[in-house]
Amino acid sequence: VRTLRLGLDLGGTDAKVAVLDGEAVLATASAPNGAAPGREEAALAALAELGLRTAAPFGRLASAGLALPGHFDAERGTGVLLPNLPGAWVDRPIAGPVAERLGLPVALVNDVRALTLAELRLGAGAGARDVVCVALGTGVGGGIAIGGALHLGTGHAGEIGHVTVDPEGPLCGCGNRGCLDRMASAAAIAADAGRATVADAAAAARAGDPAALAAFARAGERVGRVLAAAVVLLWPERVIVGGGVAAAGEVLLGPLRAELRRRACVAPVATLPVLPARLGAHAGAVGAALWGSEAASGTSDRGRGTDR
Amino acid sequence: VRTLRLGLDLGGTDAKVAVLDGEAVLATASAPNGAAPGREEAALAALAELGLRTAAPFGRLASAGLALPGHFDAERGTGVLLPNLPGAWVDRPIAGPVAERLGLPVALVNDVRALTLAELRLGAGAGARDVVCVALGTGVGGGIAIGGALHLGTGHAGEIGHVTVDPEGPLCGCGNRGCLDRMASAAAIAADAGRATVADAAAAARAGDPAALAAFARAGERVGRVLAAAVVLLWPERVIVGGGVAAAGEVLLGPLRAELRRRACVAPVATLPVLPARLGAHAGAVGAALWGSEAASGTSDRGRGTDR
Repeated sequence: VRTLRLGLDLGGTDAKVAVLDGEAVLATASAPNGAAPGREEAALAALAELGLRTAAPFGRLASAGLALPGHFDAERGTGVLLPNLPGAWVDRPIAGPVAERLGLPVALVNDVRALTLAELRLGAGAGARDVVCVALGTGVGGGIAIGGALHLGTGHAGEIGHVTVDPEGPLCGCGNRGCLDRMASAAAIAADAGRATVADAAAAARAGDPAALAAFARAGERVGRVLAAAVVLLWPERVIVGGGVAAAGEVLLGPLRAELRRRACVAPVATLPVLPARLGAHAGAVGAALWGSEAASGTSDRGRGTDR
Repeated sequence: VRTLRLGLDLGGTDAKVAVLDGEAVLATASAPNGAAPGREEAALAALAELGLRTAAPFGRLASAGLALPGHFDAERGTGVLLPNLPGAWVDRPIAGPVAERLGLPVALVNDVRALTLAELRLGAGAGARDVVCVALGTGVGGGIAIGGALHLGTGHAGEIGHVTVDPEGPLCGCGNRGCLDRMASAAAIAADAGRATVADAAAAARAGDPAALAAFARAGERVGRVLAAAVVLLWPERVIVGGGVAAAGEVLLGPLRAELRRRACVAPVATLPVLPARLGAHAGAVGAALWGSEAASGTSDRGRGTDR
């Protein structure tokens, strides 16, 4: 008997879908997210329809999860802080409208926490129980698994991107200064390298451009320093690095590992695996599917308190 | 029927003992630790005897735990990194000799992790499941509870004192530079205040001395910044601040709370309780007793891997 799990991932640009049978990925799909001011409900409807269409050939869905690029109120199913999603999402019902179209409950999860769960179960974290995950992209997100499950604390634990790197650094959307999210983002790296985009910077680094190499090294060092704090606090079994920016490879990961090992030397960092994420662009949707299933069965830590 | 639990705490200066019946503290005792080069085994024997003597009036012991001021190999029961304990402790059997004298197994635990467990069960953390604890004293120690249990990760999770505060700061015993442990220790505060001891600095601060007030404010800010990283990563229900230096009170805790709230504003810090530890000088011994009992019953997370 199949246990079909639907995972939806409403990203800042694209909507993604994954259909799982247990832990086997049967199908994935993606489309532009369609989100815009005044088009929020239409975007949710289109996402649900993409999910239903992708799942239809396989049978009846057992559970569904929805990944979002920010914070939400898990209990009310509404948006809280979704700055990367075009439109007006604060206090807007999100889980309800999608659940209605799917005909089953929808559990919300942060997109990088979803990626963390997917990597923990099916990717670079498989076999481990305690994992720290960081996703480097437009922003810097994170996730923490403890004892084989996502750790959410009172709501949104794992916000690696909002650890302070430079107390006098640039103002962050969260209200703090010098957050990693601002200092190792795709835009920060591009600006630091004097290029228009992080892809341009990566190409320049591959061609040996010193400014681009230095920019990736600085970003890697900043991420490594924050990961060192996480490692010293949590002594995880593995560290996983995902996100589009991580595709730059060793120009970023080399300095990251070096700084992590220098700063977290009180922990057994010499033998701590620092691994690239394995599941690719649909990791968030896959993780949302896992999360939806765990939420439906009541085994997940859905957070013990209210959102900010 | 009583369930007598013995807790031993081999501190850098004093040895302490607590005898519990379940979670009720029946008796405590303390004595100079007797540790010195060449006197290591005698110190362990004296600690065990103090424990037996304190417990004798109450009946037969069911379990025992031993708190140590540093790192150990939990599986082998030997010392690994105990710089604050006079004598030679690296690779020395510790659990075995004490267990032999007590006639029952002895579970080792770091002293601040023991304090964290005691506060979680019987002190400022009672009723909570996720707690971050910091102890300010000769050094800066920490402990993390997740889901109502100590989190140890691959061995010694919770090392808040070894999070980097200043990348170019003073060299730490761990090999890193600018660890909180070096920059908010009793000695660092005293030196910063231009006083011989932290007690002198606290007295000067109470009398309104600007240099002393600034020294406590700087230390509080550093601790607050590292606690902010822990809060952003873990979204705990409570933060607990213990240790002798915390007795300085608001001159330290005020700046600590302010920096924590400033830096961790992505999390619900406005409503996050930051509480003084409640259990006083024997918290480590009480926590060791709780730990010994949990280890004996197999319910504790004894760490999933080898020590550094």
